[in-house]
Amino acid sequence: MKLIIAVVQDKDSNRLSNALVEEDFRATKLASTGGFLRAGSTTFLIGVDDEKVQSVLDIIKNNCQARDQLVAPVSPMGGNADSYVPYPVEVQVGGATVFIMQVEQFNQF
Amino acid sequence: MKLIIAVVQDKDSNRLSNALVEEDFRATKLASTGGFLRAGSTTFLIGVDDEKVQSVLDIIKNNCQARDQLVAPVSPMGGNADSYVPYPVEVQVGGATVFIMQVEQFNQF
Amino acid sequence: MKLIIAVVQDKDSNRLSNALVEEDFRATKLASTGGFLRAGSTTFLIGVDDEKVQSVLDIIKNNCQARDQLVAPVSPMGGNADSYVPYPVEVQVGGATVFIMQVEQFNQF
Ligand code: NI
Ligand code: NI
Ligand code: NI
Repeated sequence: MKLIIAVVQDKDSNRLSNALVEEDFRATKLASTGGFLRAGSTTFLIGVDDEKVQSVLDIIKNNCQARDQLVAPVSPMGGNADSYVPYPVEVQVGGATVFIMQVEQFNQF
Repeated sequence: MKLIIAVVQDKDSNRLSNALVEEDFRATKLASTGGFLRAGSTTFLIGVDDEKVQSVLDIIKNNCQARDQLVAPVSPMGGNADSYVPYPVEVQVGGATVFIMQVEQFNQF
Repeated sequence: MKLIIAVVQDKDSNRLSNALVEEDFRATKLASTGGFLRAGSTTFLIGVDDEKVQSVLDIIKNNCQARDQLVAPVSPMGGNADSYVPYPVEVQVGGATVFIMQVEQFNQF
C-alpha cells in the first residue's frame, strides 16, 4: 500500500475531491499554506493499493495541472497606480506536488 | 522508529489525545476534513519506537473504534417533512484509518 | 528524495519559513496543535534531495532550537494571587521534532 501526499491549490481542491470520490478513492484533506505553491493550498492524504497509484496520479494531473489563465485587471484602488496594467494578463494557476510513500502497515478500526 | 498517521473523527479526538498523554505518547494533531470518514476529522501524527506500535494501535482502537449510536430524531424544521423519522435511529460513529510509516531518521532540537 | 516532516512552535514558524525560502527550499505548512510541544505548533512538509537533508536540518536547528527565555511576570488578575511570581522567570521556548521519510516517487504537474 502507498500513501499519496498531494499538495494542490485551493482553487482545484473541490474538483479533485469530487473526482476522487467518483472513482471510489478516499482522501483526507489538510488545510495548508504556501511554499510549494503561491496561493493557499490543500494537502491531500490518499491511501491506495500499489496498483492504483497511477490512476490517482492521473486524476490529480487531470484536475490540478499547472495551466495559464487570463486574469482581469484589478483597479489600482489603494495600490500603486504606476504598476496598474489595464488589460487581462496571463498567470499560471494550479499545479500539484506529489509525494508517494511506502506504507508499512495499514489498519482500520 | 515509526510514524503513525491516524485519521479519527473529531468527536473521538480529545479522548484519544488524553489516552495517549496518559501513556506518555506524544502526538501532533492536524485539523482535517472528510474523505476517510463522514464527519470532520483530526489527523494524528505519532512518532514511536518500533516496539511501541502495538500499544498505540490498541489505544486508538479502544478510543476510536467504529460503533453504533442511537441518535435522537431531529425536528424536520426547514428540512423535508416526508423523510422525517420520529424515533431514534442507529448510526455508525467513530472509526480510525491508520497508516504506519518507516522513519529513516529522527531528530529533536 | 526525502520528505522532512518538522513540527515547530508557532513563534518560530515565520522565521523558519523565511530561512527556507532564502535557501531555495520549498515547504508546505500545516496548522497543528500540541503534543510534541507545549504551545501551538506548525508542521512543515519539506521535500528535498537526499544530499540536501543536512542543510535543511541545519536551518531548522538554527531557527527553532529549544532555548531559555525570560518571561515578564503576569499580573495575577483573576488568577491565584498565592502563586504570583513578581519577577521574570526563565521558560524554555522553541524546539523542533523532525521525522525524515523516504519518498518512493515524486511528481509535479
Ligand atoms: Ni503496498
Ligand atoms: Ni525504527
Ligand atoms: Ni531519494
